[in-house]
Amino acid sequence: MAVIVQKYGGSSVADSVRIKNVARRIARKVKEGFKVVSVVSAMGKTTDQLISLAKSVSVNPNERELDMVLVTGEQVSCALVAIALRDLGINAISLNAFQTKILTTRNHTNARIVDINSENLKSYLKNYDVIVITGFQGITEDEHFTTLGRGGSDTSAVALAAKLGCDCEIYSDVSGVFSCDPKLYPKTRKWKYVTYDDMLELAAMGARVLHSRAVEIAKKYNVKIYCASSFTDEEGTWVVERLPEWLEEPVVTGISLDENQMKVSITNLPNDANVISDIFKRVAEKEINVDMISLVKNGEATHVSFTVISDRANGVKELLDQTLSVYGVKYRFYGRFTKITVVGTGMRSSYGVASRFLELLASEGVEPELITTSEIKISALVSEESAHRLVEKICNEFEL
Amino acid sequence: MAVIVQKYGGSSVADSVRIKNVARRIARKVKEGFKVVSVVSAMGKTTDQLISLAKSVSVNPNERELDMVLVTGEQVSCALVAIALRDLGINAISLNAFQTKILTTRNHTNARIVDINSENLKSYLKNYDVIVITGFQGITEDEHFTTLGRGGSDTSAVALAAKLGCDCEIYSDVSGVFSCDPKLYPKTRKWKYVTYDDMLELAAMGARVLHSRAVEIAKKYNVKIYCASSFTDEEGTWVVERLPEWLEEPVVTGISLDENQMKVSITNLPNDANVISDIFKRVAEKEINVDMISLVKNGEATHVSFTVISDRANGVKELLDQTLSVYGVKYRFYGRFTKITVVGTGMRSSYGVASRFLELLASEGVEPELITTSEIKISALVSEESAHRLVEKICNEFEL
Repeated sequence: MAVIVQKYGGSSVADSVRIKNVARRIARKVKEGFKVVSVVSAMGKTTDQLISLAKSVSVNPNERELDMVLVTGEQVSCALVAIALRDLGINAISLNAFQTKILTTRNHTNARIVDINSENLKSYLKNYDVIVITGFQGITEDEHFTTLGRGGSDTSAVALAAKLGCDCEIYSDVSGVFSCDPKLYPKTRKWKYVTYDDMLELAAMGARVLHSRAVEIAKKYNVKIYCASSFTDEEGTWVVERLPEWLEEPVVTGISLDENQMKVSITNLPNDANVISDIFKRVAEKEINVDMISLVKNGEATHVSFTVISDRANGVKELLDQTLSVYGVKYRFYGRFTKITVVGTGMRSSYGVASRFLELLASEGVEPELITTSEIKISALVSEESAHRLVEKICNEFEL
Repeated sequence: MAVIVQKYGGSSVADSVRIKNVARRIARKVKEGFKVVSVVSAMGKTTDQLISLAKSVSVNPNERELDMVLVTGEQVSCALVAIALRDLGINAISLNAFQTKILTTRNHTNARIVDINSENLKSYLKNYDVIVITGFQGITEDEHFTTLGRGGSDTSAVALAAKLGCDCEIYSDVSGVFSCDPKLYPKTRKWKYVTYDDMLELAAMGARVLHSRAVEIAKKYNVKIYCASSFTDEEGTWVVERLPEWLEEPVVTGISLDENQMKVSITNLPNDANVISDIFKRVAEKEINVDMISLVKNGEATHVSFTVISDRANGVKELLDQTLSVYGVKYRFYGRFTKITVVGTGMRSSYGVASRFLELLASEGVEPELITTSEIKISALVSEESAHRLVEKICNEFEL
């Protein structure tokens, strides 16, 4: 029996017309000979609305009870998809986390899947052609509902595919994995294949097509994921462990921009690791995210630069005023800037990516404020205007 | 451990302000020393909205899946009540039909409760001061959600009280059981006590305060019910097997009007029971409700009169035209009229209620078109104008 998992996101089931469209797509797969395990998110903005409703009753709703509220969103959308499938003559049934027995940790609103009863799933698959399963949710051992946090439905889908040993199709309103946001560069390239590692970086960089947690599970259990749009029949993107051999591995797979970045430079700090760690500890305590930390030791003194999002600049200023007065050192803010990042697992085996990237900046007359690199990623902080100009050049240079 | 069941209807939990109000009422009961089993309906018009949603996907939604959609309404309202209770420092938990293990028949959208796992309930009651249970729903033995049909939450509440051997308080937007609709006669009497039998008649007559199925279960398991408003602290009504001994049993407990009634008279039918049954069978097949049937055999012929609601008059006309032509008999429609009904188990032991009722009609110069009686009920079909005039007279005569 050929089984496939198909996940449909909230925008794919936002109203009854779209629900019927999803049902037709599932029915097509059944006619191709598959048993379909369909994982469905809550309709449109339902989850947000349910959260607001709970918050209208309490500023800080009990999390066990909040989960009890939230899980109803997927139960409704799943049952509606099953209703639409029944109308198409498909033998379908919707199942919630109780019926599917998706066991999770007790960590309400942010639980992790512990186990899925696959015997139970298989017995449903014997009796039905389609089982429509509520994404984003599970139950604890003592039968309380839990939810899996943001991106939870992707996680449910990939976990089910891992358990059933089958592929996982993720349908959303995005037609695949692109090298950069098409809004930045309309001619951007859609990949036919990307590796789990590249996908993890791309997801962290804000590619909305697939949640990182789901990719991690896919990588761990080697589940092949296919990302495509539920609105068109355009070819999507496969997310896999290794690219097919006939395919030359691209050096760079993605490019992204983060706008509204401020650079903070603290000069002439004493050469004392405790001082540096003290500063960053205080920033973290204020829940301010720091990015692109760059540290240079220069003889007797240490110079540190880092970026923060401009919204948080006032918070950081206040904090530095308090902290740095002790050490008698100065800081300055620069910006706004834009962070431009290129990512690709291909960098590991391909020399000179950094130099090609820097050369490109130089040829455009752009002097980066900060540069940080990791094994598979290079980021540069540049002016907003140059960033947008660079996107096209980089896409051309690296064939994105 | 003193336990009480409190049921709150949809209008009592229609928004977050009302939900917090319900939580305060439950908390008060906890402070009086009770463990509270609270049964909550879906918020306001939620059930109707969910039905519309399902019907926007399919004209005739699969009933198993429709139940899966509908049960979410109570799950949300229960969790919100639990959230509000937690905010008041009350140790509360919400439970759906899976968690409560309310077992029903497989008859989706109109299931009957088969059993409730009371060990499970008692163990929750050991650990929590309040358990908030989804009314209107259950699960089948093989773990599908079911719903109990209209008035289902009342049924859930009384069944839980029966299982736990405690009293059941039913809160709605009506402050108790009245002898007639206060809109008809503002000075109408609210009863302190009514019997199950009277309540069954009153519910059938449209008293919205309590559903008949719930009263039947209460009667069977002798569950004392208290009906009151969730919006005021006004004293409500006890529904019991027998009135307290110190209370003189009222002869008449209720009066109601049904407007827009048409009288159909068929004269000179042959004296043949098959003919009569044939006519009513055809009417029933068209799903037309017939009321106040009166039959008189007069020598060689039979005369039949009955009432139908005026909306259905055209359907009945069409049908009689087809049917009666076979027998060559005539029919006539009269109306519109209003049916006035008085009800009371006290009639059983009190002679002359019918004569007092008829005397009253005569003294007002009202000639009834039809009269039907049962052991505990008398109905007369009169003109609309006389009906409204009679309400006050009857209320005075029978001290309603």
